[in-house]
Amino acid sequence: MNQDTITSFSTFTLQLPDWLPEYLINIPAHFSTIDQKMTFVTELARLNVKYRTGGPFAAAVFDSITNRLVAPGVNLVTTSHVSIAHAEIVALTLAQHAVGHHDLGAEGHSPHELVTSTEPCAMCLGAIPWSGIRTLICGARDEDARDIGFDEGTKPPNWVNTLHARGIVVTQDIHRHKAIQVLQDYAKDGGSIYNGRQSTP
Amino acid sequence: MNQDTITSFSTFTLQLPDWLPEYLINIPAHFSTIDQKMTFVTELARLNVKYRTGGPFAAAVFDSITNRLVAPGVNLVTTSHVSIAHAEIVALTLAQHAVGHHDLGAEGHSPHELVTSTEPCAMCLGAIPWSGIRTLICGARDEDARDIGFDEGTKPPNWVNTLHARGIVVTQDIHRHKAIQVLQDYAKDGGSIYNGRQSTP
Repeated sequence: MNQDTITSFSTFTLQLPDWLPEYLINIPAHFSTIDQKMTFVTELARLNVKYRTGGPFAAAVFDSITNRLVAPGVNLVTTSHVSIAHAEIVALTLAQHAVGHHDLGAEGHSPHELVTSTEPCAMCLGAIPWSGIRTLICGARDEDARDIGFDEGTKPPNWVNTLHARGIVVTQDIHRHKAIQVLQDYAKDGGSIYNGRQSTP
Repeated sequence: MNQDTITSFSTFTLQLPDWLPEYLINIPAHFSTIDQKMTFVTELARLNVKYRTGGPFAAAVFDSITNRLVAPGVNLVTTSHVSIAHAEIVALTLAQHAVGHHDLGAEGHSPHELVTSTEPCAMCLGAIPWSGIRTLICGARDEDARDIGFDEGTKPPNWVNTLHARGIVVTQDIHRHKAIQVLQDYAKDGGSIYNGRQSTP
């Protein structure tokens, strides 16, 4: 196999869009309420649409003890050209990288929570138990994402209970209307609905 | 928020372990049969255990027309410190990066297939429809991974049918015994079973 081909697939860098680190300079280091955390996350989703850096979704991992932001995430599917780059995956991955551990619930570490502007799709739902987070806080419902044409995948109908059974507390509908507004604005603006294979099996 | 904290989470690089690109120099550029593809993938899983670069799992994306390797993947959870670094996620992400498109089934591209040494966990199953691959070829069953203590997550009992319904063809049990051998050798060698939160809800 030739060296150029090997080099073409040996590495991939996941990177937040330029506007995001700049935006963070002016935010507080701590977020004391769920309201503040979700307001921050829906604002990231709105800005991700505004700057056209991906789909209308954002997420963030917080330390549940200090309420410090550990890592943010926005949807980067169309701009990074990889389909796993959903907001939750980006936030969890950058948080684990920052903490230096693949398990955000590992002994000796603070418990962590994932705040997401829209309920997780089937992939992100599957990623949550592996991440070690203990709390999931959601804005819009997955049917709100389906309403504008996004495919959320085959989730168990009782998916909230499957997380509760693993000791992961789920809170739904926090500022749902704000997250819906971002979804609707994205659709109205002609944003790409980038489902796998254009939803044509 | 201070600049050092922002820098700590702004980027993450997914990288194949050093032995893998070196190993690929001596492999053929084309794999004409399923047997050859799965033999290659189970060998990657075996080497990943041998070199202690992650869990006992490997995968690869092939172009279904040319039978060219598009990208390989091995499990890198414990060495990259991110929980999404399952073999399938690594292979799909590196393949999309190499091809330059988030949809490996997009118009104007060859169809692609994912060959995996063990059936996908709940997260990787959820990732498959978004990736655009049209064929999934599996070695060991998920119960073989569970046998050595890995948690595969909450998958629909009819998960093969959920992929078929999306036009993704699934083939199971290709060289299953070889993939099981790698799993068993890993367990015997005391390899880390790195389930989220140590499986303790």
